[in-house]
Amino acid sequence: MLVDGKNYQSIWVDEKNPMVVNVIDQQKLPFIFEIKRLCSVDDIYNSIKDMTVRGAPLIGAAGAFGVYLAVLDSVRYTDPLPHIENSARHLISCRPTAVNLAWAVNYTLDNLKGKGKSLQEKALKAALKICEIEKENCRRIGNYGLPLIKAVSNRKKGATVNILTHCNAGWLACIDYGTVLSSVYFAHDAGIPVHVWVDETRPRNQGARLTAWELENASVPYTLITDNAGGHLMQHGMVDLVIVGCDRATRSGDVANKIGTYLKALAARDNKIPFYSAFPSSSFDFEISNGVKEIPVEERDPEEVTTVSGISGGRMTSVRICPEKSPAANFGFDVTPAKYITGLITERGICSPFEKDIKEMFSDKLI
Amino acid sequence: MLVDGKNYQSIWVDEKNPMVVNVIDQQKLPFIFEIKRLCSVDDIYNSIKDMTVRGAPLIGAAGAFGVYLAVLDSVRYTDPLPHIENSARHLISCRPTAVNLAWAVNYTLDNLKGKGKSLQEKALKAALKICEIEKENCRRIGNYGLPLIKAVSNRKKGATVNILTHCNAGWLACIDYGTVLSSVYFAHDAGIPVHVWVDETRPRNQGARLTAWELENASVPYTLITDNAGGHLMQHGMVDLVIVGCDRATRSGDVANKIGTYLKALAARDNKIPFYSAFPSSSFDFEISNGVKEIPVEERDPEEVTTVSGISGGRMTSVRICPEKSPAANFGFDVTPAKYITGLITERGICSPFEKDIKEMFSDKLI
Repeated sequence: MLVDGKNYQSIWVDEKNPMVVNVIDQQKLPFIFEIKRLCSVDDIYNSIKDMTVRGAPLIGAAGAFGVYLAVLDSVRYTDPLPHIENSARHLISCRPTAVNLAWAVNYTLDNLKGKGKSLQEKALKAALKICEIEKENCRRIGNYGLPLIKAVSNRKKGATVNILTHCNAGWLACIDYGTVLSSVYFAHDAGIPVHVWVDETRPRNQGARLTAWELENASVPYTLITDNAGGHLMQHGMVDLVIVGCDRATRSGDVANKIGTYLKALAARDNKIPFYSAFPSSSFDFEISNGVKEIPVEERDPEEVTTVSGISGGRMTSVRICPEKSPAANFGFDVTPAKYITGLITERGICSPFEKDIKEMFSDKLI
Repeated sequence: MLVDGKNYQSIWVDEKNPMVVNVIDQQKLPFIFEIKRLCSVDDIYNSIKDMTVRGAPLIGAAGAFGVYLAVLDSVRYTDPLPHIENSARHLISCRPTAVNLAWAVNYTLDNLKGKGKSLQEKALKAALKICEIEKENCRRIGNYGLPLIKAVSNRKKGATVNILTHCNAGWLACIDYGTVLSSVYFAHDAGIPVHVWVDETRPRNQGARLTAWELENASVPYTLITDNAGGHLMQHGMVDLVIVGCDRATRSGDVANKIGTYLKALAARDNKIPFYSAFPSSSFDFEISNGVKEIPVEERDPEEVTTVSGISGGRMTSVRICPEKSPAANFGFDVTPAKYITGLITERGICSPFEKDIKEMFSDKLI
């Protein structure tokens, strides 16, 4: 996507030095647009851990580049493979909920096998391939989501389509386009009047910081709201469509996504508003069926809850919002049961959140 | 309630100067405990408007003291009544959702009529009476809520009872005790192990700032969570009971409360968790029936959404959390339809949220 007229992805190999992976530092947006250079497995691990990079498809790609950097580093060893495999395991352990990370790391590992080319070439090729796959997935997801928006627009006789989203599932979370926002961008480009209600998405405010920045950047009309507001908006006919991302989906269509998603799904159901989750098939975990019971939900530092960071007097500042010794809990995700989901927007089309239909659409990917 | 060993209400007449009304400045808690002196109708109006005082019962009491200060001021006029009545109208217009404000202001106005005593004495007596009524209401509400907590404790064989609440409906929001927290305090005092999940309650963070401060102060165990987290906790059996306050209830049992309450009610229903609203009958608006359609929902300054205030380096600081020009919407309340409410905890007992039962319990208050 364009930033100040220049085209960017959220991750790429440095043009001058192919031993460096560049990312947009998402901890500093929207206040500072800064490129961060990652030169080692530890750099990648820390960037995923501290959410310099985040979003299921992007942490997958970052993990793949992590394997590539491990390969570069492995020249120090007589037998490079144990080092590479240890690094891969370390990377996978970094964040537990999104399944894309394990998928992408293992895909890259698998591609190191076989003859020809150096390990380095094979790792880089695999990581770049993952980027291309996810970009193409997002483009397709956007194309499958677009008719949903178009249909609402037609029904409303061209009046603005109001879409509510939670967290950030835009191009920053992916490599390009986005999963949720790709449809929005395509609709906007097609001249359909769209407006996005952006949940701020506490504790880390990815909505207020990243989704708002993306939409502002792309001149798509939006309004920032607190995470508490969506139900009221839906009760009053101010939301036509809810589209959220996904960090892990079960084979029965349950969807883990940023904490708070489930509450929006309940409100959508109560107000008869379509609720979609948009994601590439790399976010499916076909091994599990009951999302609430089986998807591991990451617990993060309570300080993310007791503090809020933003900008004050031109400087990034963190403020404590509660008594000094307040205990806090910080669950990163929740699971929306399939029964509250209207459809899953994937790179192969829109799928009903039923095991039978998911199996049918992704039969080649099942174990 | 005790603060550092000294007993406080959230509003009182200054002991040395009866022409001054004192309040605890709730804009500065939990960072600074400061008493603010209010000396005129404008002081009262501004304190309600900027939420130095907030909470349905407290803004009612503050409004009543506003009429008292208008009476003191009216000695300037040959005919004091028009000034007092104008001031009363002005006070009522200050915040539209909570019905207690109009109720308390009108109660005080009505009490100016009749013979004997000076206007000043009558106004002060009425305002103090409102404080006593609301204190006693809260004490009774707490006593009616206590058995609900006790029953859960018995069912759990003495294991900790986990209560989730949204916003602040403690003694700060009332004159003393609180509506929601009175039951919690009484349970804690009775030796029942309780733990409160405190929703931070964006945009103004009354949960993180005020409820956390109250519970900390009273040594009641609690954990701060984001507004997004409650659904996940309920899905995983970590919430036994939800109790929230109320800014206006309809005669059919719909409840307007701080924005986001409705989402918690939906999650409670989905997970078969009892959901109660606790409030004095002064929060009933018997004239209306359909809460979603008829209760006016205050829209506040978007800056409350685009910024968060807290403490940084020992100083109260406000940080912007989004791009500089982000538009934002700020609805103060939402309405939970009666069908999602298990019961209404009032000063007369627990009432089912059905028009018939409400009518029966409050027959003397109907118009």
